[in-house]
Amino acid sequence: MTDATARQTEIHKAQAVEWFKSLRDQICARFEQLENSYTGPLADRPAGRFERTRWDRGEKQGGGEMSVMRGRVFEKVGVNISTVHGEFSEKFRKEIPGADENPNFWAAGISLVAHPCSPLVPAVHMNTRHIVTSKAWFGGGADLTPVFPDDADTNDFLGAFKAACDAHGDDYYDRFKKWCDDYFWLPHRNEARGVGGIFYDYLEDDWDANFAFTRDVGRAFLDVYPRLVERHYNNAWSIDQREAQLVKRGRYVEFNLLHDRGTRFGLMTGGNTEAILMSLPPMANWP
Amino acid sequence: MTDATARQTEIHKAQAVEWFKSLRDQICARFEQLENSYTGPLADRPAGRFERTRWDRGEKQGGGEMSVMRGRVFEKVGVNISTVHGEFSEKFRKEIPGADENPNFWAAGISLVAHPCSPLVPAVHMNTRHIVTSKAWFGGGADLTPVFPDDADTNDFLGAFKAACDAHGDDYYDRFKKWCDDYFWLPHRNEARGVGGIFYDYLEDDWDANFAFTRDVGRAFLDVYPRLVERHYNNAWSIDQREAQLVKRGRYVEFNLLHDRGTRFGLMTGGNTEAILMSLPPMANWP
Repeated sequence: MTDATARQTEIHKAQAVEWFKSLRDQICARFEQLENSYTGPLADRPAGRFERTRWDRGEKQGGGEMSVMRGRVFEKVGVNISTVHGEFSEKFRKEIPGADENPNFWAAGISLVAHPCSPLVPAVHMNTRHIVTSKAWFGGGADLTPVFPDDADTNDFLGAFKAACDAHGDDYYDRFKKWCDDYFWLPHRNEARGVGGIFYDYLEDDWDANFAFTRDVGRAFLDVYPRLVERHYNNAWSIDQREAQLVKRGRYVEFNLLHDRGTRFGLMTGGNTEAILMSLPPMANWP
Repeated sequence: MTDATARQTEIHKAQAVEWFKSLRDQICARFEQLENSYTGPLADRPAGRFERTRWDRGEKQGGGEMSVMRGRVFEKVGVNISTVHGEFSEKFRKEIPGADENPNFWAAGISLVAHPCSPLVPAVHMNTRHIVTSKAWFGGGADLTPVFPDDADTNDFLGAFKAACDAHGDDYYDRFKKWCDDYFWLPHRNEARGVGGIFYDYLEDDWDANFAFTRDVGRAFLDVYPRLVERHYNNAWSIDQREAQLVKRGRYVEFNLLHDRGTRFGLMTGGNTEAILMSLPPMANWP
């Protein structure tokens, strides 16, 4: 790597970190707005506020910041940002592009999972990341998990990510939507985790364009998901609907612990357990 | 295999199946007695009764019977018996004793997980099985998962299995207790699932003795666990204790989905999902 390339890489890393932090701030502000504007069945509770906790992997390996809110719209929502670096273990080198030449990695990203109080408001996951080995790429996505699928929600959610995709690559939406459907699948239940979204990885053909796409994915999420929350959050729900939500959340736990690459990878390689398992719902049932 | 050996194997299989069924019946009867004798905080609810459901893998592969009770002592308890046979996939043959010579397997067993209503009553798991490939062996064990460990409970539980072990092999208790401690460990939490018990596998040196030991393990469970239930079940508990129970149950879910060999093996090889995941608690929290 030439000095100029190395300097460029450092600038890229800093830009990515700055964006993930900015997106985190924008999302947290918007979600707190939703807590404020809420007038639904739990409006006697106080509006939720995010609490931030820094965590550290020691001086040489970076760390992150968890933002968790337990409110009246969001029963539990976590927004993690992290910037970590180190060496991939022997075992993982083969699985990671560019890690065979050089086991050093650097990774930064934002990861969000929201479990709303209301069973009428869909749960959601969004994550984008920038990874640098001897290569450098972006990955991420978002998927929606309603208890009771609603065509308007599904169309709006998919439409927002389609627009982000279409602005950056003709085949992006079809490829990334299918990747999402394939990935968020529970084979032992023979059912999808939710109604889909997009999932992409190893995007490395053009740093500026890939970063711009990744920013647009974040912006699409920030725009569309709060509108779905607002569509339903003030409506009353029944005990049966709440029960169905708790069972659906059990499926979410099953997916994350049995199948999710990030969760299993993180836990098996000594990641921050609290940050990784922040994705688990506050309450789940297997009746 | 000679005809005489083949006949002997069939007799052995039938004896094992008969025992697992008999143990299941004895456990269900004893657990229903506990539901009847209960006079604690939830005594206004009706005493629970087991419901039985048969399931089938198709004519050639056997099936099983789930017995599930949702009561006032046991929030959810499942007792499964099953007798299945088939061929191990290429992938698993290397991991299973005797399966490299001949991929056919036959397996029968009993598996129990109890999640009590009261956070003062420990959850428990017990499982024993007989597996026949070109070899034939017994395996199983039991482990106790209290929310609030109690020395008397731990001593009685371990003592019961120590007595069963000591009657059959000088080194059994030390080996099988350590195997249990090593197995029921959550590395990502750096904590044990519970207070231990015993775990054994590949016991194949002497069919009659190994079967007798396996029966004694079942009898030890049947004797000791209901006494621990009776020690605590009528005592009042607090909301904080209930909360702690729901969090502890979250750890139980984490262990079963991330680490448990039987759960992962079963789900990945197309086992009966409902029967396998009957072990999950009726309710769990990740606050």
